[in-house]
Amino acid sequence: MVIVMKAKASQDQINNVEKLLKDLKLGVHVSIGSERTIIGVIGDKRKLADTPLEIMPGVDRLVPIMEPFKLVGKTFKPESSIVTVGDVEIGGNSLVMMAGPCAVESQEQLMETALFLRDQGVQFLRGGAYKPRTSPYSFQGLGEEGLKLLAEVRKETGMLIVSEVVSNDSLEKAIKYVDVVQVGARNMQNFDLLQNVGRSKMPVVLKRGLSSNIEEWLNAAEYIMGEGNYKVILCERGIRTFETYTRNTLDLSSVPIIKETSHLPIIVDPSHGTGKWNLVTPMARAGIAAGADGLMVEVHPNPQTALSDGNQSLNFESFKTLVDEIQKIAPILKREFSK
Amino acid sequence: MVIVMKAKASQDQINNVEKLLKDLKLGVHVSIGSERTIIGVIGDKRKLADTPLEIMPGVDRLVPIMEPFKLVGKTFKPESSIVTVGDVEIGGNSLVMMAGPCAVESQEQLMETALFLRDQGVQFLRGGAYKPRTSPYSFQGLGEEGLKLLAEVRKETGMLIVSEVVSNDSLEKAIKYVDVVQVGARNMQNFDLLQNVGRSKMPVVLKRGLSSNIEEWLNAAEYIMGEGNYKVILCERGIRTFETYTRNTLDLSSVPIIKETSHLPIIVDPSHGTGKWNLVTPMARAGIAAGADGLMVEVHPNPQTALSDGNQSLNFESFKTLVDEIQKIAPILKREFSK
Amino acid sequence: MVIVMKAKASQDQINNVEKLLKDLKLGVHVSIGSERTIIGVIGDKRKLADTPLEIMPGVDRLVPIMEPFKLVGKTFKPESSIVTVGDVEIGGNSLVMMAGPCAVESQEQLMETALFLRDQGVQFLRGGAYKPRTSPYSFQGLGEEGLKLLAEVRKETGMLIVSEVVSNDSLEKAIKYVDVVQVGARNMQNFDLLQNVGRSKMPVVLKRGLSSNIEEWLNAAEYIMGEGNYKVILCERGIRTFETYTRNTLDLSSVPIIKETSHLPIIVDPSHGTGKWNLVTPMARAGIAAGADGLMVEVHPNPQTALSDGNQSLNFESFKTLVDEIQKIAPILKREFSK
Amino acid sequence: MVIVMKAKASQDQINNVEKLLKDLKLGVHVSIGSERTIIGVIGDKRKLADTPLEIMPGVDRLVPIMEPFKLVGKTFKPESSIVTVGDVEIGGNSLVMMAGPCAVESQEQLMETALFLRDQGVQFLRGGAYKPRTSPYSFQGLGEEGLKLLAEVRKETGMLIVSEVVSNDSLEKAIKYVDVVQVGARNMQNFDLLQNVGRSKMPVVLKRGLSSNIEEWLNAAEYIMGEGNYKVILCERGIRTFETYTRNTLDLSSVPIIKETSHLPIIVDPSHGTGKWNLVTPMARAGIAAGADGLMVEVHPNPQTALSDGNQSLNFESFKTLVDEIQKIAPILKREFSK
Repeated sequence: MVIVMKAKASQDQINNVEKLLKDLKLGVHVSIGSERTIIGVIGDKRKLADTPLEIMPGVDRLVPIMEPFKLVGKTFKPESSIVTVGDVEIGGNSLVMMAGPCAVESQEQLMETALFLRDQGVQFLRGGAYKPRTSPYSFQGLGEEGLKLLAEVRKETGMLIVSEVVSNDSLEKAIKYVDVVQVGARNMQNFDLLQNVGRSKMPVVLKRGLSSNIEEWLNAAEYIMGEGNYKVILCERGIRTFETYTRNTLDLSSVPIIKETSHLPIIVDPSHGTGKWNLVTPMARAGIAAGADGLMVEVHPNPQTALSDGNQSLNFESFKTLVDEIQKIAPILKREFSK
Repeated sequence: MVIVMKAKASQDQINNVEKLLKDLKLGVHVSIGSERTIIGVIGDKRKLADTPLEIMPGVDRLVPIMEPFKLVGKTFKPESSIVTVGDVEIGGNSLVMMAGPCAVESQEQLMETALFLRDQGVQFLRGGAYKPRTSPYSFQGLGEEGLKLLAEVRKETGMLIVSEVVSNDSLEKAIKYVDVVQVGARNMQNFDLLQNVGRSKMPVVLKRGLSSNIEEWLNAAEYIMGEGNYKVILCERGIRTFETYTRNTLDLSSVPIIKETSHLPIIVDPSHGTGKWNLVTPMARAGIAAGADGLMVEVHPNPQTALSDGNQSLNFESFKTLVDEIQKIAPILKREFSK
Repeated sequence: MVIVMKAKASQDQINNVEKLLKDLKLGVHVSIGSERTIIGVIGDKRKLADTPLEIMPGVDRLVPIMEPFKLVGKTFKPESSIVTVGDVEIGGNSLVMMAGPCAVESQEQLMETALFLRDQGVQFLRGGAYKPRTSPYSFQGLGEEGLKLLAEVRKETGMLIVSEVVSNDSLEKAIKYVDVVQVGARNMQNFDLLQNVGRSKMPVVLKRGLSSNIEEWLNAAEYIMGEGNYKVILCERGIRTFETYTRNTLDLSSVPIIKETSHLPIIVDPSHGTGKWNLVTPMARAGIAAGADGLMVEVHPNPQTALSDGNQSLNFESFKTLVDEIQKIAPILKREFSK
Repeated sequence: MVIVMKAKASQDQINNVEKLLKDLKLGVHVSIGSERTIIGVIGDKRKLADTPLEIMPGVDRLVPIMEPFKLVGKTFKPESSIVTVGDVEIGGNSLVMMAGPCAVESQEQLMETALFLRDQGVQFLRGGAYKPRTSPYSFQGLGEEGLKLLAEVRKETGMLIVSEVVSNDSLEKAIKYVDVVQVGARNMQNFDLLQNVGRSKMPVVLKRGLSSNIEEWLNAAEYIMGEGNYKVILCERGIRTFETYTRNTLDLSSVPIIKETSHLPIIVDPSHGTGKWNLVTPMARAGIAAGADGLMVEVHPNPQTALSDGNQSLNFESFKTLVDEIQKIAPILKREFSK
């Protein structure tokens, strides 16, 4: 932490800041500049978390120097983490693919989709049983019934299951049926849910919030890890900007940034990230090329009749093309994806 | 809803869309333009909520015509709603003032603040017992202990209490101690919490999400009202933009927009909306001048030692100035605020 | 400037940075922290403007301490500047009002509007002769013909004239006909134009760019002042956000921020700032309440037939209401506005 | 264009709108819905460009149906355009690479860089002679002197030259020395410059504005093409968002969107798009994977001493890696890039 004093800060004001820091047993370095004095603070900055130095007389502003998180950072763990679910490794040499319908609709739909996806090398079937919808009048998901359908498909196909949780209640239920829970963009700062996911020790896909910067996203992961759950997979799904052509702006630069600052695996969701099915394959290619560990993609046997987000879902044929292209790009990144 | 067909849509494609709509018992108007055909849809659009018309062959895009919400809209209820709590009316002729520390710290702090604020005409003491914090290492609030302190102050001072809830558990506890619950920006789309707040029938301050547009905000209110709780007070608290000088960009244009589209009362929070105590009073004045029904302001006896958001809190002296200026502006808006 | 070294920076790397700074005759303070070393730099930071310290081995990042501008800042000139045009002071005790049609259309339109506005106490007639339009197929303004019409109206009414310049050519022409030139949002970083406006010594209204933060805006003003033209009036006109209800998001917090960091006067344009005529009056009130020195408002005798931006223009009757309300609010801010 | 009437619009109001449209010789389709009437307008919407229908009594809002541009659109020209400069095709089967220092500094620097880049298969040397800088105190480029240095290097190496123009004056000079002019982000809506570039008939790289949506960007290209210059190359270089880790947010979804809506070639600039050299190669890979026709990359023999944007420049070694990876990815997109 560096404290920048105002141009006109008095010596008394500087002394007061210095004293407060020393009282907190923090190291202090004072640099007297040509126009301003700055004060470097050394030691555990958490001692300062709740001291509003910023409004002490003479203080202009504070400049944080160290990252605000611990467990998620490369400083804490320099080598990449691999999250293992069943016999699948996420963040390892093989790319991971999570695919399926936005919302679980029926057993027929799920089974047809699962069998197709398993054939394509997809390891995880995704399907929403609890749907957070902007309007209370939109389809809200089948709830526990949907989870049961997912569990049946797992039994029949051997695929792993990922499904979103939106509350502690849905989390409790999901634990019984799925392999990986997902915390969606709208709940990225639902800290109560994050901590409960942490305590559950369930592997979790943590989506980036619509207007969350990378630091907040990593802090959300820190909430989960702080409860002892290290099985966190980050998922970039687009942020909100002024552009209206796409539903969100998929921020692929978050992929190399996460790889640089954190040891956690990161996947990309080009379906929600664009909101348009015809942009999904190009952005999936781009996501893998940027260094992502895998993809989450919406696939539906008949997108035209889907109960949710149909216009961003691929049909089987388009998904096949996507898989073909990912298979070709993977080796360039020294990764692999096999059907 | 208007369906815009592609420039090259075939007659068959147009017929298919028409047929689907008619099968759903919707009215259909086809306009053949010089370059494109557009199809107007008449009837209950909820029948279409989950039909991805957008990807039907030949369809270019859909244009919604009607508002997606009902209960919150002026069409449903043209006259302004007044939310009554105790003997205070929110949305009526008198301005409402909610003030107090960001976080409840101790009984001394609360009592000192409450007595001062009551003298200033403030009707509601606000204080956070459950604090949603970006980092798990920041002060998280006193929890139920904080609620008890708030309830004691209510007993002694007669002030009404507003406090944030962040989960169903904190909601259940808050119901026992406070007069108004608050749903914060980060939980604006925590639909599970919204519905529980709806069922609780507690008066609620619903803050705008950091990156929520006005339609989403009104839809969040619709979730609460849909459960039969009509005591919703909207609160503008700033949105996220590229500007870094302020913590958020207080979007005061939302005030006249809400007044135009909804019957619900709206207040403004210039403390979170700017993040800097020296911007609070000018933006409070501006909020009232824009037509807000009241303010929510952070006040602390000694902001310099506050455990949370100290640098955006007013001290007693600055708050007095704010009240003086609000009292002068109120009559121009044909409102009043009396100490 | 503070240089934050990486956690693992070697002593050699630290020494290299120190040496480079000393070679540039800059003062250096090295603070060795528990995890990182930080280096304070003292002296004229412009020596560093083009040295990419940021990529020297061992350097993590740079933290600027001082403002990047000089002439526009309060440090340079602590007391507020008053820009005098004719016998009107902008930034003084009286509020300034600039009003008129978005685009000059005809002499009748201009004259009718000018006579009405003069009666209302408006000091400046605004009218666009050169219109920067997103599409080349929209009305682009009457050019020099429009300037001549404005000059005629000045002669007849005695009103001062403000009109936008979009190029060096239009600037040269405008100088002959108007009292104040305006640089619009799209040209806020057209540095060539800014410098020519600076050399012209013409009073100038400098609008904030659609996605410019306050520091960039002040730097744009610095370009003008750097050429010896101190007659700069800033104008907040809204920034671009994700909100789609309004054309822009009027960022009124920029008003008190400018008042705190700069000595320049600032006015608010609620017409472009919202894009909707029915939001203009509430936001005009709010702008003055936030501390602005005046307003720029679009007024048209018959907005329904306006050739540009008709739906954000007030008609005469609505403008009268606006003036009435501003007259009532002014005294609260210890300002005045007289018809 | 569709006109949505208010829920309570009277029959008279509907008739008035209908009459106005018919007077303009536009086709009209009226659909009477359950709650609202909507009016479809058929014919040349430019007749309506300056008629503020939006404020006619009873009108709620207007919904544009057709694209606002012509020449840049796929409707006008369905097949992809190839821009030929010298013997290089941009938008054809081969990827194009434009690389070089942000700013021209000296002949040695340029020559060393050019020889290296030519060896790597780079067709265009880029180098800024006119630099638009946020602060007037930053290095502004060598001006015509810089252009001369670029022209000398062209003579010696045979490389094609691309350089930014920031004003009509710099455009006139650049025409004499370079092969392609560049209009930067800050000038994307400097319509006067765009039209002059159009008249010059020079091939042009048109960068996307910092806060421009895709429609505005295409409209800027329309300004150039409207003057008869069809040699326009679009360049995505990042937009402004709330994220502060990167200088801009590179919006790669613009690549497939442009490919879908326009026939113009598009390249990606990952250097300005991220502002951090270590993100350049991953985002370059991602850009090509998204379907871009080429790249513009900053390369400097010694980024540490660069006079401008050093921390986003690649050194020779890093650029070699980039080229190697692009060569591997190209065939997957059925493109090629040869040294």
